[in-house]
Amino acid sequence: MISITVDEVEDIAIGAAVMGTGGGGDPHVGKLVAKQAIEQHGSVPLLSPDELAEDDLVIPTAQMGAPTVSYEKPPGGDELVKSVKRVESAIGQKAIATMPIECGGINSTFPIAVAAQMGIPLVDADGMGRAFPELQHETFNIYGVSGTPAAVADSHGNVCLLDTVDNVSLEWIARGITVRMGGTGYLADYPMTGTQVQETAIPNTMSLVKDIGEAVRVADGDVVEAIAEVTAASIYGEACHLFEGKIVDVKRRTEAGFVLGHVELEGLGEDRGQTMRIDFQNENLAAKVGDEYRITVPDLITVLDRETGDPIPTERLRYGARVQVLGIPTPEIMRTPAALEVWGPRTFGIETDYRPLNA
Amino acid sequence: MISITVDEVEDIAIGAAVMGTGGGGDPHVGKLVAKQAIEQHGSVPLLSPDELAEDDLVIPTAQMGAPTVSYEKPPGGDELVKSVKRVESAIGQKAIATMPIECGGINSTFPIAVAAQMGIPLVDADGMGRAFPELQHETFNIYGVSGTPAAVADSHGNVCLLDTVDNVSLEWIARGITVRMGGTGYLADYPMTGTQVQETAIPNTMSLVKDIGEAVRVADGDVVEAIAEVTAASIYGEACHLFEGKIVDVKRRTEAGFVLGHVELEGLGEDRGQTMRIDFQNENLAAKVGDEYRITVPDLITVLDRETGDPIPTERLRYGARVQVLGIPTPEIMRTPAALEVWGPRTFGIETDYRPLNA
Repeated sequence: MISITVDEVEDIAIGAAVMGTGGGGDPHVGKLVAKQAIEQHGSVPLLSPDELAEDDLVIPTAQMGAPTVSYEKPPGGDELVKSVKRVESAIGQKAIATMPIECGGINSTFPIAVAAQMGIPLVDADGMGRAFPELQHETFNIYGVSGTPAAVADSHGNVCLLDTVDNVSLEWIARGITVRMGGTGYLADYPMTGTQVQETAIPNTMSLVKDIGEAVRVADGDVVEAIAEVTAASIYGEACHLFEGKIVDVKRRTEAGFVLGHVELEGLGEDRGQTMRIDFQNENLAAKVGDEYRITVPDLITVLDRETGDPIPTERLRYGARVQVLGIPTPEIMRTPAALEVWGPRTFGIETDYRPLNA
Repeated sequence: MISITVDEVEDIAIGAAVMGTGGGGDPHVGKLVAKQAIEQHGSVPLLSPDELAEDDLVIPTAQMGAPTVSYEKPPGGDELVKSVKRVESAIGQKAIATMPIECGGINSTFPIAVAAQMGIPLVDADGMGRAFPELQHETFNIYGVSGTPAAVADSHGNVCLLDTVDNVSLEWIARGITVRMGGTGYLADYPMTGTQVQETAIPNTMSLVKDIGEAVRVADGDVVEAIAEVTAASIYGEACHLFEGKIVDVKRRTEAGFVLGHVELEGLGEDRGQTMRIDFQNENLAAKVGDEYRITVPDLITVLDRETGDPIPTERLRYGARVQVLGIPTPEIMRTPAALEVWGPRTFGIETDYRPLNA
């Protein structure tokens, strides 16, 4: 069994920024919280989904709401543990492990802190395989797991336990609670048996995120190639360079708690003379070269700094920046007809059918 | 032990409109729900607070949010029962009775339905002694009872269990949940022991509401006199006629979920030549004759139709209407320094100290 130490957390934070596809919150804050928890409580065993017994209870954890609030006011430490315990007591069973619901962005690292604090392992899997904005955007939801009983806690000590009739209602009500909690809440949801994890989670994504981070960290020159090598050996498939250009326009607005907009690139290098437009809602959703969609959700689109290779979140895209655009195909479990009904391009208002990257 | 039958519900609905002080929601819908429940499950024993044993668990119930939603979509029937059961299971004890948190308006009648459905008595008491807009406006809160564990349910089957650090946080978070539930939620909160009810509740208010309703129903002519006779024999003290006039101005706006505004009256009869201004936030808060405050919260101000004696809610005050204004003093438990800190005039932005009516 691999263990997550403070070194692995460094790599996970880098990989989670790549898999965040422009959103999911800056993994930096989560990284600090996770490192502190590991220093205090010891390293966190990473448990393969295969190692779970049928009836083992796994309770995933995540931060919900505006990640910016966490930058200003990181969680005090026991908010997520409180939520897990509330769900445990609603079910009447102890969780043998926690798990991320989202392997991109800030939510890749918070569950590591929870695992350290509770002295339990982290399952090497998640339900988004990247970052997505809402709680129904989960393979757990797509393949029939109830999101509740779920709990949301805040840093003051308030805790809400939710039982909802479906997972869209969970998203809707929990989102309202996090707004009242000051913009961010700490969530335990989609409690699952070992069998349910094996049947619905995207396996080995925490290892993948760590490997991507490590590859980026040691890359000598071409970051895209380094990432491509790692993903090619995974269930995702080979990542690829999509475009190189200069940002000539950014439109960004905040609506109903989401950051919506698009960015326009003018080609550089081999792409000179062409343009790319990337639409986003927190995360990058679709990219067109000229009039033609080159990639859409659920496939991953990440904008990297052209010089340093650092992923640039949608909220930090700036006029004049020179960037390259990376695409990562998604594994089969994320692009079944059932999955595309929940997070295909049309569910985000992108008027095209999904066509797998490089298909 | 007195029992509440469908006849008593009729009187309670009338009395609750008087005690609603212009707000609290139209008791009519709650009346229909309560009558239906009594017809189906039998009458509801009314339990004096004195009859409670020390450790008896009482779980009060109420509708929270915009009463107008209940007019359009009355509760399906088991929302409040679900909330009570969720609180029972959080505490690990069965409730031996329910109780209103508010004896004015719609919330005087919903708990009768709950009691009938659950086959338990209703405690003859409440925590507002009238209607007030928020959950911290409770003698329970004023005298140290925790509002949580509390539960909010909706008509779809969603249920949230809340544990909050204080009762203002309960109000804030539960209000956010009811907004997400479509504007209205069904609430069980302030679970109490028999001793806590005896120490903090305003006693015998359901009987009082029923007696006021009965007096109004049988009144031959002067409704104010009929009400005064009943309240004079209670812990409230003698109600009185405050003003008679014609509505010459109504200002009403909706802000943060509340109906705020004021109404201006031009005197008629003995009040000819004088003016009265009544300020309201859902409920009537204060009334001035000329420049001088005549009555303020927590004392009760109810506007009655001058001809019929029917109470007029703040949302139905109309230019040209001829009205009389009734004042009811509050009992001692509602006007201690601790109580005035929670619902004295200044807490609602009325810049005057509280002076007991007719003092």
